[in-house]
Amino acid sequence: MNFASDNVTGACPAVLDALIAANAGAAMPYGNDAWTARVQQRLRALFAHDSLLAFPVATGTAANALALACLTPPWGAVYCHREAHINVDECGAPEAFTGGAKLVSLPGEQAKLTPKALAEAVGGRGVVHHVQPAAVSITQASEAGCVYTPDEVAALGEAARAHGLHLHMDGARFANAVAALGVSPAEVTWKAGVDVLCLGATKNGCLAAEAVIFFRPELAESFPFHRKRTGHLVSKGRLLAVQLEAYLADEVWLDNARHANAMARRLGEGLASVPGCDLLHPVEANEVFARLPQPVSEALRAAGAVFYDGHFGAGTQRFVCAWNTDPDDVERVLNAAGAAAADGARDP
Amino acid sequence: MNFASDNVTGACPAVLDALIAANAGAAMPYGNDAWTARVQQRLRALFAHDSLLAFPVATGTAANALALACLTPPWGAVYCHREAHINVDECGAPEAFTGGAKLVSLPGEQAKLTPKALAEAVGGRGVVHHVQPAAVSITQASEAGCVYTPDEVAALGEAARAHGLHLHMDGARFANAVAALGVSPAEVTWKAGVDVLCLGATKNGCLAAEAVIFFRPELAESFPFHRKRTGHLVSKGRLLAVQLEAYLADEVWLDNARHANAMARRLGEGLASVPGCDLLHPVEANEVFARLPQPVSEALRAAGAVFYDGHFGAGTQRFVCAWNTDPDDVERVLNAAGAAAADGARDP
Amino acid sequence: MNFASDNVTGACPAVLDALIAANAGAAMPYGNDAWTARVQQRLRALFAHDSLLAFPVATGTAANALALACLTPPWGAVYCHREAHINVDECGAPEAFTGGAKLVSLPGEQAKLTPKALAEAVGGRGVVHHVQPAAVSITQASEAGCVYTPDEVAALGEAARAHGLHLHMDGARFANAVAALGVSPAEVTWKAGVDVLCLGATKNGCLAAEAVIFFRPELAESFPFHRKRTGHLVSKGRLLAVQLEAYLADEVWLDNARHANAMARRLGEGLASVPGCDLLHPVEANEVFARLPQPVSEALRAAGAVFYDGHFGAGTQRFVCAWNTDPDDVERVLNAAGAAAADGARDP
Amino acid sequence: MNFASDNVTGACPAVLDALIAANAGAAMPYGNDAWTARVQQRLRALFAHDSLLAFPVATGTAANALALACLTPPWGAVYCHREAHINVDECGAPEAFTGGAKLVSLPGEQAKLTPKALAEAVGGRGVVHHVQPAAVSITQASEAGCVYTPDEVAALGEAARAHGLHLHMDGARFANAVAALGVSPAEVTWKAGVDVLCLGATKNGCLAAEAVIFFRPELAESFPFHRKRTGHLVSKGRLLAVQLEAYLADEVWLDNARHANAMARRLGEGLASVPGCDLLHPVEANEVFARLPQPVSEALRAAGAVFYDGHFGAGTQRFVCAWNTDPDDVERVLNAAGAAAADGARDP
Repeated sequence: MNFASDNVTGACPAVLDALIAANAGAAMPYGNDAWTARVQQRLRALFAHDSLLAFPVATGTAANALALACLTPPWGAVYCHREAHINVDECGAPEAFTGGAKLVSLPGEQAKLTPKALAEAVGGRGVVHHVQPAAVSITQASEAGCVYTPDEVAALGEAARAHGLHLHMDGARFANAVAALGVSPAEVTWKAGVDVLCLGATKNGCLAAEAVIFFRPELAESFPFHRKRTGHLVSKGRLLAVQLEAYLADEVWLDNARHANAMARRLGEGLASVPGCDLLHPVEANEVFARLPQPVSEALRAAGAVFYDGHFGAGTQRFVCAWNTDPDDVERVLNAAGAAAADGARDP
Repeated sequence: MNFASDNVTGACPAVLDALIAANAGAAMPYGNDAWTARVQQRLRALFAHDSLLAFPVATGTAANALALACLTPPWGAVYCHREAHINVDECGAPEAFTGGAKLVSLPGEQAKLTPKALAEAVGGRGVVHHVQPAAVSITQASEAGCVYTPDEVAALGEAARAHGLHLHMDGARFANAVAALGVSPAEVTWKAGVDVLCLGATKNGCLAAEAVIFFRPELAESFPFHRKRTGHLVSKGRLLAVQLEAYLADEVWLDNARHANAMARRLGEGLASVPGCDLLHPVEANEVFARLPQPVSEALRAAGAVFYDGHFGAGTQRFVCAWNTDPDDVERVLNAAGAAAADGARDP
Repeated sequence: MNFASDNVTGACPAVLDALIAANAGAAMPYGNDAWTARVQQRLRALFAHDSLLAFPVATGTAANALALACLTPPWGAVYCHREAHINVDECGAPEAFTGGAKLVSLPGEQAKLTPKALAEAVGGRGVVHHVQPAAVSITQASEAGCVYTPDEVAALGEAARAHGLHLHMDGARFANAVAALGVSPAEVTWKAGVDVLCLGATKNGCLAAEAVIFFRPELAESFPFHRKRTGHLVSKGRLLAVQLEAYLADEVWLDNARHANAMARRLGEGLASVPGCDLLHPVEANEVFARLPQPVSEALRAAGAVFYDGHFGAGTQRFVCAWNTDPDDVERVLNAAGAAAADGARDP
Repeated sequence: MNFASDNVTGACPAVLDALIAANAGAAMPYGNDAWTARVQQRLRALFAHDSLLAFPVATGTAANALALACLTPPWGAVYCHREAHINVDECGAPEAFTGGAKLVSLPGEQAKLTPKALAEAVGGRGVVHHVQPAAVSITQASEAGCVYTPDEVAALGEAARAHGLHLHMDGARFANAVAALGVSPAEVTWKAGVDVLCLGATKNGCLAAEAVIFFRPELAESFPFHRKRTGHLVSKGRLLAVQLEAYLADEVWLDNARHANAMARRLGEGLASVPGCDLLHPVEANEVFARLPQPVSEALRAAGAVFYDGHFGAGTQRFVCAWNTDPDDVERVLNAAGAAAADGARDP
């Protein structure tokens, strides 16, 4: 009953099996292996993009920070939502890898940026006293578990171009967003103006694997040096690449995400129907943000559920579903919540 | 017949089996898992050191650069051999993670530092124009495949203390060195003055796992922030920790290293006995550096051997043995070398 | 009639004369000169603080960024007003010199921080995912030309201590603030909890001279290395020190500031009395922020006044008075404004 | 009798007078003043180069580090002499401003680089494990007080181009070199392949003024941001620019250098003729490096001479002459040396 995060899980069977198989035999190091080459081909096919460049790395923080390092000079501004993972959960990794660029944090409903908020913030280009507009970063799905539609991404893509900004997408839960939207990966990325996507896989069936995908290859020129220089070029490259290969094969990534999303939807609907329980955001991907009465919250913990408190302020809770969330666990949570609420109604 | 590097290998069976077993079930992320806790306990026992602090990371470059970041201010000097991996093979990662500290490269036989070379280089303390003496870094086994004896380490440890320097050991092939020396891990590390050891495991039976070990815990204070901020805190911490746990259990690490060393010794002795072939350095660990006549070198490649040229200048070769090097492959190489040399003798 | 900034001025006579006198003869370089030593003594007397350490530098941006580099690790958070010079006018210098620390920008009336805003922002201490609370920075006088009272500074000092934060004061216009408050320098700095003051002099009678003053000497340990390493240790140290010495002698600094403040007060009162003209902030130091009808604004420019537009949004103006602002110029501006407003009233 | 350095001097009369004159009146800040514009025009004429871009800064360390920051990525290698000021006297400023580039230190007689030493060091281009060849830096006059001839610079310029490297010249004593060579400034800079020159003025008649001169304007694109972001854009720009303007007018810079060189030549010849005294390097500019018997050295100090010991090892001395070195002081030093040597001969 662990809903603390989607990263409490192990690898899904397809990924683990592929990893075991790939372990045998010798392979040249540092990405000069067959798996790494195949992952790029697979991504080109998946995104319907002939020239994208993809680089596996082990963590989402590395993926984001390395991507941003290619998009901004040290004196650049990166516009992002104030709740963005890059802004609040990476201990300043983007600042570290960019040489000190400034994250300009913006407001927005459902932890999503808007062209309007962007327009109000961008300025100072060419004036040496000010950091220079360089990039926008959005998170798909957002830190509130909500999803940018292709139109919303495209509007931001257009705004980014109009302001002369690169558009970065933190896709730690990209699979969940694509599964929720039912669109092609291309539609919500490069066709909508995304220049670089950090495609997460760790949370959705891998052990440690993300792909930094440059839809404009010229932006990747310095990436290999940034990656090596920060210790993120693993020697046994097949470790990362084979995870991604298996993850992207046979819709494993989407099947995993669909399951997680379905579990979250069920959990969200169920909690919303419990008296006194409110959802903070629409449940569009695999996360449920709620405000539960204290007795309900305590009852869930007593029933063995693990989840984080305080994600959106005191008295709020986050539940994350994953590729292997057990439907029975969801029902157990909902039953415990319903029972606690009923108890509360009887004994106020 | 791949002698290019010890990183062309997969994980050894014990490590792979442990990884498969650890994949099941939920575990709290970011190192708050049972495997990570156990690895530290195991290392404390192995090194006979009650208070060491150990942090798993995925790559040797990350391990070294993060360790050094704890040992020097941005205006510090880190003294190392001019052939040191940190100096020539990490694309400036130490400079990146330390905020721009200077690696002062020194000469030394067999790619080993000496107290004398150190004494000649250290200076300028307290003078604001000069970078400030901060740390010494040595590689065990060295970049020439040679091994520092406990006495040699201790002499450097004493020199380091005398100069007010921390002592860092890049132990990418620490297992090979310990196996070669037949000493306890403690004897060649903290008992000899080593403050921080980067204990390699990737090259010797793991897929991607290194442990940064602080024998003086107070030096590790900022390590967790450095690690997170550089994207090296993996979310599914068991991935790294379980590799290390299995690696260190039941002398797996030493058995792997002993095999690799034995293979290298056999290969080195064999090549040395081939007319026209010279060894550049004593074969003390798992690497063989040689100068082979061109016909011999070509014959080896024709026989299917993979190895790197030019490691110590034009006309030189490096052969690396690993935990799984096939003794028959070694014999095949030696036979091919012998035959080529004999042909050359006949048809000059 | 140049009201663009107080940095359009030259040095005041006392400072220039001292500079000329100091030019003669040889003096040891890099601050090992008599002037530099005397400046520190003078500041200790002025601030009634026996052990403060003072370091001259040439620019305010350098002063602030170097000071902050002593107060935060690269993974630290520096809380400041969103209008703070360090946040919007230094092209990321604080990020550069701190190794990438994060400026957390906060709201506040009159461009002043409050303990409440600070309390709402501080968090995450000890949690490795978040940047770590490190320092607060306030500007005296503020970017809105307003002044923190000793009580206001003391409240922030207390809040800073409660949150475990160092307190930095950007005193680019410290003289104007002290002159306005009529308090001792100690009362609004270290006695109120300020740890480091960047005492501006350039804008108020010098050519290029600021003093970074550490009231807690232990915080200055790394300052000399930061300063040298960023090219801010000038070789002919007397150049900076003699300016500061003359500036601080005989109340030159306060006399200069009193004049500038008086001119701004007169200008502000005058403009406020012109129909259609509004002041955006109380005029407490030497800056006047106004919203003038366009005909008035144009009339001022036609009369030869130089000033900046848009400082607080479209349709706003900033007028800065200095040590040498000519009272007649102020009257000329007011006359022009009054005439333009009267014209507008006649011909709407 | 201060021969410690050329930076113990004040400004020469022409520069001081110009500074006094420029102090009057208002001038727009941050280099938007008439002096700054005129300096660039003057430099274009002096160097016979229509499109060079020149930026005044206050210190030589800033000039060098900012220039290099435009010539190398953080993962670049900058080749320089092991005695280079950038390598040993700037506390790592080049590493700081370049984001951690590596200075690769090379040997060479008279502290001068050679194409041969360069060729032996350059390598690894395109290989992600190695720092990438980016720039060469030479010092004119060298740290041994010697001068690169136009042919020597041109040979290095050609080598730099052949290796794909930018060529930087640290011209802290450029005037002394040009005066010694009797060539045009263009001949030893851009016509010989220099891309960026840091033209020193502080040591030779100014108080604090250097010009970073880009002969290839496209290399300067990021300079203004680097300069601002490191606190080196002074607000009252005329302070720096007027010094440079006066320095470059009427051959002041060359007259000052000629005097300093002549004094050094006389001092060098005189010391060389004293029994037991040796020169370490030819005296080609304004510095004399000697090895004096201890009694001679002590006699000079007793006579009031100030100079540094140990510049090229124990028992060595450095004497620096400047624009205002008094010929009588030189004779006094020589007389004292001669007398001490004679005493020594009598009483061995």
